[in-house]
Amino acid sequence: MKQNQEVVLLRQPETRPIAADFELRNADMPSLGDGEMLVETLYLSLDPYMGTAIKGKHLSGGVGAGDVMPGETIARVVESLHPDFTTGDLVLTRSGWRRYARATTADKLPSLPDGVPASAYLGVLGMPGLTAWAGTVRLAQPLPGQTFVVSAASGAVGSAAGQIAKNMGARVVGIAGSAEKCAYVRDRFGFDACVDYKQANWRDALAAACPDGIDAYFDNVGGTILEGVLLRLALGARIVLCGMMQQYVSATPLPGPALGPIIGKRATMKGLVVYDHADLLPTWRRVGAEWIQTGRLYFKEERVTGLDAAPAALERLMAGGNFGKLVVEVAPG
Amino acid sequence: MKQNQEVVLLRQPETRPIAADFELRNADMPSLGDGEMLVETLYLSLDPYMGTAIKGKHLSGGVGAGDVMPGETIARVVESLHPDFTTGDLVLTRSGWRRYARATTADKLPSLPDGVPASAYLGVLGMPGLTAWAGTVRLAQPLPGQTFVVSAASGAVGSAAGQIAKNMGARVVGIAGSAEKCAYVRDRFGFDACVDYKQANWRDALAAACPDGIDAYFDNVGGTILEGVLLRLALGARIVLCGMMQQYVSATPLPGPALGPIIGKRATMKGLVVYDHADLLPTWRRVGAEWIQTGRLYFKEERVTGLDAAPAALERLMAGGNFGKLVVEVAPG
Repeated sequence: MKQNQEVVLLRQPETRPIAADFELRNADMPSLGDGEMLVETLYLSLDPYMGTAIKGKHLSGGVGAGDVMPGETIARVVESLHPDFTTGDLVLTRSGWRRYARATTADKLPSLPDGVPASAYLGVLGMPGLTAWAGTVRLAQPLPGQTFVVSAASGAVGSAAGQIAKNMGARVVGIAGSAEKCAYVRDRFGFDACVDYKQANWRDALAAACPDGIDAYFDNVGGTILEGVLLRLALGARIVLCGMMQQYVSATPLPGPALGPIIGKRATMKGLVVYDHADLLPTWRRVGAEWIQTGRLYFKEERVTGLDAAPAALERLMAGGNFGKLVVEVAPG
Repeated sequence: MKQNQEVVLLRQPETRPIAADFELRNADMPSLGDGEMLVETLYLSLDPYMGTAIKGKHLSGGVGAGDVMPGETIARVVESLHPDFTTGDLVLTRSGWRRYARATTADKLPSLPDGVPASAYLGVLGMPGLTAWAGTVRLAQPLPGQTFVVSAASGAVGSAAGQIAKNMGARVVGIAGSAEKCAYVRDRFGFDACVDYKQANWRDALAAACPDGIDAYFDNVGGTILEGVLLRLALGARIVLCGMMQQYVSATPLPGPALGPIIGKRATMKGLVVYDHADLLPTWRRVGAEWIQTGRLYFKEERVTGLDAAPAALERLMAGGNFGKLVVEVAPG
């Protein structure tokens, strides 16, 4: 007899979540009706937006105390009363922090390209990768030779955005939160430079890394880093606002940066919500997989094992302590 | 014998200027060389950017202590050694706060359309009007039926921008600083509504005036008003940053508004510098003059008489006390 498990949110945190805000518990196995299927979670994705969702403030809908945590998963169909799915199918779905779940629809994965693991469809070929692709090719639009800067550069979105811009011919500068992350960003993700924002002189380092100014900025953090970047814009710069980690972990809304440089540099700032760009997913899966296979797109996963490890992993993610796309291995692949 | 006069800046103010920061003094008449002409100022334009220029911070170049104040003027050629100009020509030039000036080049005005005074080429058909035209038709791009909001709505830029948007079919809501100004904005400039931001409940009034949200916002002030508008954006909103009066009069840079709504509403924010849009001037002069003649564009001038009145008028402008485009009548027309 299979035992189902799930993780619930015990209380909405005011700032960033800690592991004790969650509880793992046993749950009943779902029963199936016509057109439904039972899926077993292989991989669960942990993403920064969850920090907003559990404060009840995210676009995807809030999560309240007592709710099972939502989340994207790669799952295997273990029983199907659905005409389009059969046992053994690999699917991308939003079954949440559960071992087993009932699903009525799902995104059947293509047969895996050589060298591309199923978990990549949660990360570099999934929502974070699509975010990077849409924000870079559709909004930031770096030209060859221009300077492209991205914050949270060692993260799932940032590392992909920088490599996409690099493959478009731009000079790419990352911003990340430690010397170790910066070295990785340069050496493995192939950025031209990376600035450690935890160093007091990071603004000078950014200026030195961008002698001709910043033509395109992919912002994943907001706050003081965004403010520092605005002071180094080139004429006609494009700024893509994608995430605001400094806001996610704050109890009250923070003021934004002074916007004078937007006028002075005739800049354009655009907000990015990945859900608007779902039309680009098939293209990105194709291009991204090809780049992975030809060594032009590198991705880093950090895996933790078991649903019980998910709360502490999310705590670490929201504190900036992870390194690479966080994936929970829920069931043995 | 003609007596020349000029106004100099005595000291760079830290916040907003007062009349005592300036001095009117007699000056020598300029002598002319080949290719030069002597012009007599008829009208001198006073504009908000001067508040930044005298702090040494404006794009047009700073003004230092002891410098004659710069400024746009309508002048008459009184002596010419220039092959393209003859005595009596009306020109638009940047001869500054002077009675007489030497000029080597100028923008010869077209013959004045019926009902359009020469001073209009400093205001509604000049730089402020072009700012409104470029920001509205090129950047904000309101569609028929959309809601267009503009701050400093009783000013030279704001009143023109609102009427341009109205002529494009938009619903137009102004923001201004008194009940009297708001009544004028509605009754004479023909806006659909106007919100007095000096009332404590102005945010509620703005929400009531924009039940479907704000599709386009032409910002002339920045600061807390921009912040209030961001909270009412409609999906896909365009925000044009044009001026930041709240910054101009502050000794230190102020923080900006929280930018979360830019993401949530997939908004686009663009900086506007009128000098980039000089290509639109002939079109605007033609369309604007036609609209003035057919009653579709109303403009308000506030005139003061004599160069000696200019410092106090600028003080009042920077304190928000003017009402309509400020013009100094320097010489009897």
